[in-house]
Amino acid sequence: MLDQLFRPEGIAVVGASANPAKAGYVALRNMREKNYPGKVYPVNPKEKEILGYPCYPSLQAVEGHVDMVVLIMPSRLIYSTMDDLDARMEEKGDVKVIVCAAADYAETKTPEGIDRQKRLMDGAKRYGIRVVGPNCIGVIDNRSLVDTTFVDTGVPFEAFGEPTGIAFLSQSGALACSVLMEGAARVVPVLYNKFISIGNMADVDFVDLLEYLEEDETTKVIGLYMEGYHDGKKLAETFRRLTKKKPVVVLKVGRSDLGSAAANSHTGSMAGSDRVYDAMFRQSGVVRVETIDELIDTLQAFDRLPVPRGNNLFLYTQAGGPGIYCTDAIAAWPALHMPVVSEETKEKLRACELPMSNICQPEGYADITASASPKNHVDGLKVVLEDDNVDGVVFITVVPTFLPQKELAEALVAVEKSFPEGKRKPVYYCVMAGAYTKEARAIMEQNGLCTFNTPDKAVLAAKNLCRYGAYLREREA
Amino acid sequence: MLDQLFRPEGIAVVGASANPAKAGYVALRNMREKNYPGKVYPVNPKEKEILGYPCYPSLQAVEGHVDMVVLIMPSRLIYSTMDDLDARMEEKGDVKVIVCAAADYAETKTPEGIDRQKRLMDGAKRYGIRVVGPNCIGVIDNRSLVDTTFVDTGVPFEAFGEPTGIAFLSQSGALACSVLMEGAARVVPVLYNKFISIGNMADVDFVDLLEYLEEDETTKVIGLYMEGYHDGKKLAETFRRLTKKKPVVVLKVGRSDLGSAAANSHTGSMAGSDRVYDAMFRQSGVVRVETIDELIDTLQAFDRLPVPRGNNLFLYTQAGGPGIYCTDAIAAWPALHMPVVSEETKEKLRACELPMSNICQPEGYADITASASPKNHVDGLKVVLEDDNVDGVVFITVVPTFLPQKELAEALVAVEKSFPEGKRKPVYYCVMAGAYTKEARAIMEQNGLCTFNTPDKAVLAAKNLCRYGAYLREREA
Repeated sequence: MLDQLFRPEGIAVVGASANPAKAGYVALRNMREKNYPGKVYPVNPKEKEILGYPCYPSLQAVEGHVDMVVLIMPSRLIYSTMDDLDARMEEKGDVKVIVCAAADYAETKTPEGIDRQKRLMDGAKRYGIRVVGPNCIGVIDNRSLVDTTFVDTGVPFEAFGEPTGIAFLSQSGALACSVLMEGAARVVPVLYNKFISIGNMADVDFVDLLEYLEEDETTKVIGLYMEGYHDGKKLAETFRRLTKKKPVVVLKVGRSDLGSAAANSHTGSMAGSDRVYDAMFRQSGVVRVETIDELIDTLQAFDRLPVPRGNNLFLYTQAGGPGIYCTDAIAAWPALHMPVVSEETKEKLRACELPMSNICQPEGYADITASASPKNHVDGLKVVLEDDNVDGVVFITVVPTFLPQKELAEALVAVEKSFPEGKRKPVYYCVMAGAYTKEARAIMEQNGLCTFNTPDKAVLAAKNLCRYGAYLREREA
Repeated sequence: MLDQLFRPEGIAVVGASANPAKAGYVALRNMREKNYPGKVYPVNPKEKEILGYPCYPSLQAVEGHVDMVVLIMPSRLIYSTMDDLDARMEEKGDVKVIVCAAADYAETKTPEGIDRQKRLMDGAKRYGIRVVGPNCIGVIDNRSLVDTTFVDTGVPFEAFGEPTGIAFLSQSGALACSVLMEGAARVVPVLYNKFISIGNMADVDFVDLLEYLEEDETTKVIGLYMEGYHDGKKLAETFRRLTKKKPVVVLKVGRSDLGSAAANSHTGSMAGSDRVYDAMFRQSGVVRVETIDELIDTLQAFDRLPVPRGNNLFLYTQAGGPGIYCTDAIAAWPALHMPVVSEETKEKLRACELPMSNICQPEGYADITASASPKNHVDGLKVVLEDDNVDGVVFITVVPTFLPQKELAEALVAVEKSFPEGKRKPVYYCVMAGAYTKEARAIMEQNGLCTFNTPDKAVLAAKNLCRYGAYLREREA
């Protein structure tokens, strides 16, 4: 049934607007810009057409097949809209899913808001229509090119690359916006595979979508923003089953008592004891993150990198200061180890690096110095990756002005491609030079490498991948 | 004597190059681009002119007054270069300061490197010349427009605004590069007031520069990247005196044993026990930060915002999810409090916000909802700032597509300007919408407001300002 959420044939948008400053315009513009191949039917009695889509005075009046209805009109119009839907369903019976983006429903905890949500849900249940929302920003599928959101990321669609394998679910529309927009603002904009803001969860909820995404072959990793869920047992079971197949990354708020209080007054649903959630996440192999940056970094790392087979992380740096800084970041996580590599590896490293390089002091650490050429950078990296005691590498370069960054980026891509799929190990590339290295980072990112701008972020992602790897190994043991 | 470091009359650059891929070219290009008004004398026997600057075959051959010599040539040429300097000094005696950017000196711990540094220092001492470096990236003063660094930030100079009040000192050239480049990549690029990479500290060191910056009126806040310093007592005394006048923010590495080991093999100087440093920083009112992002955020906040008079931080948000997320971030710092505001403030807030707003549940928290207009945003902010129980505000907006962002930004600037200088309180503006809100953030930043892209970063900066404020109050008490 949720198939129509991601692959509808025809989408009717109630509350479509010709005014570019309105949400009901931006939703249409997003689908126009993405060149969504299905049918789009704006419903607005006052307009003839919007963005080239002919307008209809009502849902009932749309002649074509409509399996998805998007509601962006003001909530007070829900009664007439549902009457209109009733009329359509009696006649055509085609609608399978409603995405109710508008706010001002039960989340307001007012009798009016509760009644509006009741009218929506009563109507939907009558015909077995599934509902996403209300009070959400909508649904995106960047493979089918459905986009019911009214979010302008500020980045033109052609600047995005191929869709990633990242699916994201959010209980907060605002946080969903932020994840979408912050992702879009990255060196290579993040094109989420599927993106669902579930709002009040009046019907479709976390478990429904997790079950769907479990079977969805294009989804490689799932991210969630969560305030609370009413059925902890079911959620835990779902996570436990799901994490066997693919990683799940959660940003769960309400960690503090104060945060819990704020969450309760927001969604109304009890956030529950954070310690219970935390234990549940750990026991079911869910990776919990603390910040929005860490969330996006970790999702990208899972999407692109193989899960490490162990926690031995080699630190390979072109600069001393950032290397020490990164060593501190690694040492902050007791689970991570800087490995002792073989004497052979050390000798090979000495042979391919400049004489003043620091090879393995301390163990698991190499500083190839600011004078390192692209060849020094990549030859040593290859040597380190071939050592059996190394499960992953944090690679740091500041890219001095005199280092040809494009050549370096292409050489690094070639190193990665030289390892056959099963032999790849995760490398977390830290490229610490702001706007100057946009070109190098873009080349690396477009070729599936994972880049970061500071070592602490690279280490956080590495720690999260290692945690998931350790969970899988424990579970198999 | 250090005056010549920041306001030289004539700069000779040994190792100047006509090859754009060389450091000795970029240093000249930076001064050309900044339109440095003093004299620049490239020294290179093979070139006639570089970037319009006439070249000289030797230091001795430069006719004009030279008070600063920048050394970017390979270190093996230090002997002939110092001979050349000797000749000049015997004849003209004008050089007061050397910035030796080149690496491969005593930090290599090789007899050759140590001898090269000895030749440099012997020559300098003979004439009372002060030396910055070697093994550094140089010196910048964005008021006098001196820039001896060979760093290309990737951002054209005209994109920077006015110089800030931020001075930054770094023991690591690479980390200095990163702070420079990451700063340049921000919404409004950070133009550091003074920026000094001190490298091996063969002569000019932390204390020299801190003493200079203590008296420098254009310096409002000082940042340091530090691995270790040989005279802890002197450093502590300097910090204690300095923090009475202006805030000092330190990123000190070697927090972990592993990091200390890496630091020792890098600069050679014992990093010392981190716990001793940590206590010293606390006792002398130095704000210690953990990441490069936090460092730059905190420096910018100190530069722009008044030091708060207390730790009562009101959380004013336009979105529920980000508000809860931010509450967790505040609750993570026991020193921060979300204050109980007066009944009058609550009533005024209810009057100027939309009916579904959450006013003070929990205390010190307001969620004005996604439907809030620019007027709702600013009217409520003003009410909160006028409450005596509020020392600072974290302000969160996701800037939905249907909110006119330019109007909002300008209205926020007007609120800030409506408070007379002595009555201003720090507001940490979190604008969570990636590239989409570049315009709004640019307007706010250009008018001296402090913006962040995620709530956790805003709270970290707030916590750091509160810590410094508390230190000053304790000290006065």
